[in-house]
Amino acid sequence: MAPEKTAVEMHPQRWGDPAAATPLNDAARGLVELAFGLHEHPPVRSSPVPAPAIDPALLDALRELVGAEHVLTDDDTRRLRTRGKSTPDLLRARAGDLSDAPDAVVRPGGPDDVAALLAFAVEHHLAVVPFGGGTSVTGGLAARRDGYAGVVSLDLVRMKRLVAVDPVSMTATLEPGLRGPEAEALLAEHAMTLGHYPQSFEFASIGGFAATRSSGQSSAGYGRFDSLVVGLTVATPQGPLVLGSAPASAAGPDLRQLVLGSEGAFGVITSVTVRVRHLPAVTAYEGWRWRSFAEGSAAMRTLAQAGLLPTVIRLSDETETAINLARPDEIGGAGAGGCLMIVGYEGTPEAASARQAAVTAVLTRLGGEWLGEEPGRAWAHGRFGAPYLRDSMLDVGVLVETLETATFWSNAERLYAGVKEALEAALGEPTMVLCHVSHVYETGCSLYFTVATPEGEDPLGRWQAAKAAASDAIVAAGATITHHHAVGTDHKPWLAAEIGPVGVGILRAVKAELDPTGILNPGVLIP
Amino acid sequence: MAPEKTAVEMHPQRWGDPAAATPLNDAARGLVELAFGLHEHPPVRSSPVPAPAIDPALLDALRELVGAEHVLTDDDTRRLRTRGKSTPDLLRARAGDLSDAPDAVVRPGGPDDVAALLAFAVEHHLAVVPFGGGTSVTGGLAARRDGYAGVVSLDLVRMKRLVAVDPVSMTATLEPGLRGPEAEALLAEHAMTLGHYPQSFEFASIGGFAATRSSGQSSAGYGRFDSLVVGLTVATPQGPLVLGSAPASAAGPDLRQLVLGSEGAFGVITSVTVRVRHLPAVTAYEGWRWRSFAEGSAAMRTLAQAGLLPTVIRLSDETETAINLARPDEIGGAGAGGCLMIVGYEGTPEAASARQAAVTAVLTRLGGEWLGEEPGRAWAHGRFGAPYLRDSMLDVGVLVETLETATFWSNAERLYAGVKEALEAALGEPTMVLCHVSHVYETGCSLYFTVATPEGEDPLGRWQAAKAAASDAIVAAGATITHHHAVGTDHKPWLAAEIGPVGVGILRAVKAELDPTGILNPGVLIP
Repeated sequence: MAPEKTAVEMHPQRWGDPAAATPLNDAARGLVELAFGLHEHPPVRSSPVPAPAIDPALLDALRELVGAEHVLTDDDTRRLRTRGKSTPDLLRARAGDLSDAPDAVVRPGGPDDVAALLAFAVEHHLAVVPFGGGTSVTGGLAARRDGYAGVVSLDLVRMKRLVAVDPVSMTATLEPGLRGPEAEALLAEHAMTLGHYPQSFEFASIGGFAATRSSGQSSAGYGRFDSLVVGLTVATPQGPLVLGSAPASAAGPDLRQLVLGSEGAFGVITSVTVRVRHLPAVTAYEGWRWRSFAEGSAAMRTLAQAGLLPTVIRLSDETETAINLARPDEIGGAGAGGCLMIVGYEGTPEAASARQAAVTAVLTRLGGEWLGEEPGRAWAHGRFGAPYLRDSMLDVGVLVETLETATFWSNAERLYAGVKEALEAALGEPTMVLCHVSHVYETGCSLYFTVATPEGEDPLGRWQAAKAAASDAIVAAGATITHHHAVGTDHKPWLAAEIGPVGVGILRAVKAELDPTGILNPGVLIP
Repeated sequence: MAPEKTAVEMHPQRWGDPAAATPLNDAARGLVELAFGLHEHPPVRSSPVPAPAIDPALLDALRELVGAEHVLTDDDTRRLRTRGKSTPDLLRARAGDLSDAPDAVVRPGGPDDVAALLAFAVEHHLAVVPFGGGTSVTGGLAARRDGYAGVVSLDLVRMKRLVAVDPVSMTATLEPGLRGPEAEALLAEHAMTLGHYPQSFEFASIGGFAATRSSGQSSAGYGRFDSLVVGLTVATPQGPLVLGSAPASAAGPDLRQLVLGSEGAFGVITSVTVRVRHLPAVTAYEGWRWRSFAEGSAAMRTLAQAGLLPTVIRLSDETETAINLARPDEIGGAGAGGCLMIVGYEGTPEAASARQAAVTAVLTRLGGEWLGEEPGRAWAHGRFGAPYLRDSMLDVGVLVETLETATFWSNAERLYAGVKEALEAALGEPTMVLCHVSHVYETGCSLYFTVATPEGEDPLGRWQAAKAAASDAIVAAGATITHHHAVGTDHKPWLAAEIGPVGVGILRAVKAELDPTGILNPGVLIP
């Protein structure tokens, strides 16, 4: 039942499958040169990983616990478990900075191993960083090491079972180390799907989806990951936590929602029981054009509030639409302009076409222009490709990074303007700020920004200043500091502003209860 | 904007508006006599309320805080704030036991008053019991008094404002003291509805809906109350907690879900921001007949998993169907038999009729028999009436009580059989156990049991033994101890079994953080 234990590893300095790298073609290079200038800036060829700063006797004891072959201290393995894949992470890796490398990578085979490892870590005061896909973009894998006897990456790569399938209740219990495609492949054997497709889908893991409250490109139809979770088992230093006795309950606070988003700081998720759906017989994606971002957004709101959301719905602002149009695989044809919306329908033929008819009627009435299926196909083809393009841009000296937030509909325009202005002011010209509405709800939506700007002398410092300005703008607008990227280390100051001192007190109290010696992902999440 | 401050108060020994009491008619008396025998058992005429056991100087200080007219110690007011409306609560009240009466009833005028009262209570170690509608059926208002300088009922009756309406985001911010009909009346001025109709609707409050994770009869369409909440403000002894910066977020655990279901033990909810909908233009309820409870349940599951739930859907088992048929206002006509399902559609005419067509096609295909609108009208007419009938049954010596649970679909039959058997075995003959599926989800459903049995010599003891047996059966089946009635004091032992020692540790840690001196609803919720 379990997929290959050794899935493709990402390059330590780049996103994704090294074989799938996409260097800029001549047309794209020309456009980049025009906008930003070309400044070839390849990563350093290789750099030394700091020697493991951990007592060899502890390593021997770890080998006793999980087997010698599952305690790895070689440079390659540790390099690949160093930080995540934010642009700051890549900039550091490209510059040869591997100072956050774990001292060892330990691979538990199941929940009992995890529990034993946590007990061992408590006893010897080892920091433990749960590792799934390594796709964090908020510093979720950059644990503090001060005061610890060492930092261990708890790699969940061996925990990839489909534990149970319940075709009556339409639930499945998955182990945390399963990557998106691995989970889908196992579910497909039962004609089921999770339907969770974040941009990180190809590498991110089930445990990570839960620990970070991931949201996917089809979440309008399938739901955010947190809404898919009906049960969880968690290994904590205080013992196992098993949650999920019913789809919904009034038996006190919903503790599942405390584990979701806990980013490894409260415990290690050892299994996740999720709602699944029948594999869709139909998947159809199409494009719509709107005269403005405001009109397209209003149309999304109308659909959401009418209970008529399609499976996929996203809307690019004028700039993002124009940039995509400028790419060689031009979307929407000449002079399309305006704002591109991608709309997708999945399900049974009857359900998909009924929804398509209802959505089409609303969008047409509101002034949308149907562009046919070609833009939908183009989007679907490239839906996981953007992070590869980022690497190619970094190679020629252009810093590309994303950030996202969410708010209620009545506040979306203010939030959009505030973040865009903050980024442009912080980075100066030439800077491009693109945005799309990535997820919609009855009461609001998320805004996903992509920024491109010259790296300059100090790209990391440049980005950190811009990110701080954007985050301040998000807080000033009363929005959330992240809709689906989690807190990590990067968002902590703004999380504190968002939930206030009483909210921070709650997180600290839960942390102190479950992890009294603070071994779990120290420095992450808790302000 | 605020409705009358003095809404109808319930009778201290009975449910609901005293003017709406419904004595059994002759036909019903005949049926009850046949089944259980008639044993007239009127409540005691009146009984003394214990004198306030609180230092008069503290009462004077409270009067300084909120105004003398808002600190009440008279017998009538305190009697009406004594416990909730479970059958055990009624049995105690009918027997004249008012030992749980609060020492004073204090009515804050707004969040500042609440904060000041909490600070005062901490300083003087007064137990504080938040009071909304007084409809708890799980002992949620029966705070411990040992070791406290007094017990104060924090009556939210003055906090009944519609604080804000956002017609773009379709949200509204409501104060906690608003009862169901009051909230609906305020929203109706904006052509909006919350759509939350639990059986306690006429008396239960917005704060209570949130604090207990209430679920209503139209929750298939409008959602459980916890799913309607997008924002909360809470007064805690540590200061205010303000949550809800977006419809959804990845900024750590969702702390809203920790406040929802906290039953006054973590803080006092001072406002709730909820998702609202446009007032439905159409409301249509109808009846369907199924050959068996299993067939009807399977049909509900099919609808839920196809994304085709109507606004209202509920299914009575064979016994509950037969009992309702035996009533003088006979449902479904002669020989209907089987299992009655009520299905309701609300919304725009187009949306309601589209959903009705789709649902009708599925139910017909699966073997359901359409009974027309009459059963739907009868259900809608009597939807809040059952608690009145309970009083009339208690008057003639028949103990009537309900309990409910939820589980995943694949476990529902086992849960149903287990609880039914446990109740029948504990109570012996003649006992009637009725059940309906009250709420459905993609992955499971709730089961709502109604029990009727002779009171016997010790009705309270009889029920407590039966409730314990049923609760043990629920835990044995791996289901939740309550789907929408909260924990209170009655469900605490089984909550501990459900969430385990680590889960209990979390609740205790949050309690200790927010309420370190334990003044908030002591003895409630936290095992």
